[in-house]
Amino acid sequence: MDHQTETIVKLIQSSDPLQDDQALAAARTGLSDYIASSLAAVQESAVAKLHDYVAREQGPATLIGANIWVTAQNAALFNGFQAHYLDYDDTHAGVRGHPSAPILSALLAVSDADTMGDEFLRAYIIGVEMMARLGESVNPYHYLHGWHATGTFGAIAAAAAIGALKHLPNTRLAQVLGIAATQSAGLRFQVGTAVKPLHAGLAARAAVFAYEAVEEAGIAGSTELFNEANGYFRVYGTANPDIAKWKQTWGKPWRIVSPGLWFKRYTFCSAAMQGADAAQSLYHAHRFKASDIARIDVFFPKNGDSALLVRAPQTGEEGRFCIEYIVWLALTGQPLERAAFAPTPIPEKTRAELLKVQRNYDDPEWQASENAQPKGRYTAVKVTTRSGKIYSTIVDQPKGSPANPLSQLEHQTKLSQASENATDITALINRLEHEPLGPLIRLIN
Amino acid sequence: MDHQTETIVKLIQSSDPLQDDQALAAARTGLSDYIASSLAAVQESAVAKLHDYVAREQGPATLIGANIWVTAQNAALFNGFQAHYLDYDDTHAGVRGHPSAPILSALLAVSDADTMGDEFLRAYIIGVEMMARLGESVNPYHYLHGWHATGTFGAIAAAAAIGALKHLPNTRLAQVLGIAATQSAGLRFQVGTAVKPLHAGLAARAAVFAYEAVEEAGIAGSTELFNEANGYFRVYGTANPDIAKWKQTWGKPWRIVSPGLWFKRYTFCSAAMQGADAAQSLYHAHRFKASDIARIDVFFPKNGDSALLVRAPQTGEEGRFCIEYIVWLALTGQPLERAAFAPTPIPEKTRAELLKVQRNYDDPEWQASENAQPKGRYTAVKVTTRSGKIYSTIVDQPKGSPANPLSQLEHQTKLSQASENATDITALINRLEHEPLGPLIRLIN
Repeated sequence: MDHQTETIVKLIQSSDPLQDDQALAAARTGLSDYIASSLAAVQESAVAKLHDYVAREQGPATLIGANIWVTAQNAALFNGFQAHYLDYDDTHAGVRGHPSAPILSALLAVSDADTMGDEFLRAYIIGVEMMARLGESVNPYHYLHGWHATGTFGAIAAAAAIGALKHLPNTRLAQVLGIAATQSAGLRFQVGTAVKPLHAGLAARAAVFAYEAVEEAGIAGSTELFNEANGYFRVYGTANPDIAKWKQTWGKPWRIVSPGLWFKRYTFCSAAMQGADAAQSLYHAHRFKASDIARIDVFFPKNGDSALLVRAPQTGEEGRFCIEYIVWLALTGQPLERAAFAPTPIPEKTRAELLKVQRNYDDPEWQASENAQPKGRYTAVKVTTRSGKIYSTIVDQPKGSPANPLSQLEHQTKLSQASENATDITALINRLEHEPLGPLIRLIN
Repeated sequence: MDHQTETIVKLIQSSDPLQDDQALAAARTGLSDYIASSLAAVQESAVAKLHDYVAREQGPATLIGANIWVTAQNAALFNGFQAHYLDYDDTHAGVRGHPSAPILSALLAVSDADTMGDEFLRAYIIGVEMMARLGESVNPYHYLHGWHATGTFGAIAAAAAIGALKHLPNTRLAQVLGIAATQSAGLRFQVGTAVKPLHAGLAARAAVFAYEAVEEAGIAGSTELFNEANGYFRVYGTANPDIAKWKQTWGKPWRIVSPGLWFKRYTFCSAAMQGADAAQSLYHAHRFKASDIARIDVFFPKNGDSALLVRAPQTGEEGRFCIEYIVWLALTGQPLERAAFAPTPIPEKTRAELLKVQRNYDDPEWQASENAQPKGRYTAVKVTTRSGKIYSTIVDQPKGSPANPLSQLEHQTKLSQASENATDITALINRLEHEPLGPLIRLIN
């Protein structure tokens, strides 16, 4: 085993986040939000189709929101897809992607009713740590090069979480991570289609397969996935990380706490959260009508809109990745609710209005505050009316980001809108580190 | 659909290689060699373990050498693994990897007894064409960067083959290719372990999953996998190919004919074929004893040994990728048979002898002839004896390469060593374009 892999394997094995109340609290909130985001998508027709597809093979693992039992790989695939389907699940600035959908879907797939809640939360925290570290090590190159981090890092992070849950010894943990790494995939050209959420499912499935390949199919793979010459960091990034620094800072603080998980109120891409908040606050102050607005300028730092790949959306689903569409809805007082982001056509009239929106980069008029999250990131919106008036504002800590978090009530509302059992689910999660998973699984499936 | 994807989709759809007798003959030989390479591995313990793992879920698809029926995805996974397990299956200079293991394993998984042989061979030829084109477009960068082409291109090529077999219309073909592309993975650090053959299985499985995701689970993905901005060529290579040239030269000649498939006599990496032939010819001329040899120099062009990653093998399996080991066996008159490349320890004494072997690059004494395959590639071996004598030779068209092919008898021998039904299998393959697959499937499973 090479030096880098050995260091990372030891970090995963020796992690003890259960002593950290903030990390545990963040994990409980993350689990609750994952369940809410998943259950919110149960009625979607694409989700129903994948449900029927995975239902063909029976097995020991459960689907969220569907009381059937399928193979562990298919449960991971389906639960990852459903959790990320509406783009309503959490994100993380270190990852530049969605950690909980792949990690929790993989963990659930290899858990059973007797799995202890403390072990489950511990593994989840370690998985998020791993995913954030991978992101810090190879981004922004990785993301800008065309990868979708939810898929690529997701496979390895979910494998790390499984390894932590199952207390795998050195060699087998490295082999599981290696088989996950050699399946690491997911491309950003799929953004705006149903394959983007599929990436979360494929990452979870890749981790479950890696675990089964080593533990059940007896496949002995390389233990050198992070080797300095041709390992993961070299292929998916540009250079090896400072592994000594990983060691010094791992869990100090836990990445699930700081920079922390972002939670969503709406079902669109997290890169649009600042712009949506800015546009909503302008609307609340000035109550524009569509006909008032002559021009809209949106200001980003360079690459601040790189996840917002869509400029002329045909459907609400594509509109999840279109700042023009989201800002237009918010500025004209339209609710940012799920119907606006459904896979149905956007009215021709609305699509024509989007031509009023211009994107601008690195404009000297705007800059992020010291507290911006991620560092240096902001979105400013400037409206020019037909009468020549100009209104503008900037947001760099949007609602749902760790510095401006959702309240307990807002989290509870998100869960209640998705499940009749919200109160019971919350109560079970709140005492999860003292109980096995069984009761929670029964409530959510 | 972007221009590049549209061009490639049309090439796949409009291909008619059945008119080309040379392409058909090459496809028959490729299929025969694939079956021989697969059946040769049936008794391996790692293969038996994966067999038991995939046997858990029943389905409509067959395993080679095992009369059971499993899911299409698991059949693809297993058959790809088994065919590549001994590194005995074909390679291709354009691909820099193994085309038939992923492509034929995927095609078999989505075929049934009624699938017509001509359609099957046609799809196979198109898959090889696609895989070679991908290699020509992104290599040598892709390979040298750390990817294992059998896995990465294999997924897309196998999806193209399935699309051709099923006569998918434009949009759905592009979507299937896109879901294959977004799973494209496989890293070279796994070379020398059982995960290398697993890459062939994972690629075949990725293609089958892509097909099922679109056709059975109704997942609508992007049709822009080859878009110029952030499509496959940009992420896995360095630049977009000359797509107009693809169009002009597609199938002229078919890549399965020229540069053509390489077939193996031995179960080691094809990059060692030249060196093995050179060492064998020196042994036949001079009958060295181990104690005669003071020093061995092996000469490559730069990067000519990049697949031969192992320098100090612990086991015969690792020795498949070690030129020092292979040349030593050949120079000392030891047979290059399967036992030498089994996953069992190499004797300490032999390992010590390997220190006598030096690798050299771009030495002005040696160069490839005009007919070298691949262009510019050679291996020269120079032996210095204890008495100071020097013997050397060079090989740039090894036995099994298209310019120095195996005879019909040698192919038949390879198949006979693996199957009691070799004569019947050969007869069925020889008339396959006039018959359905059923009889052949019954003979090989």
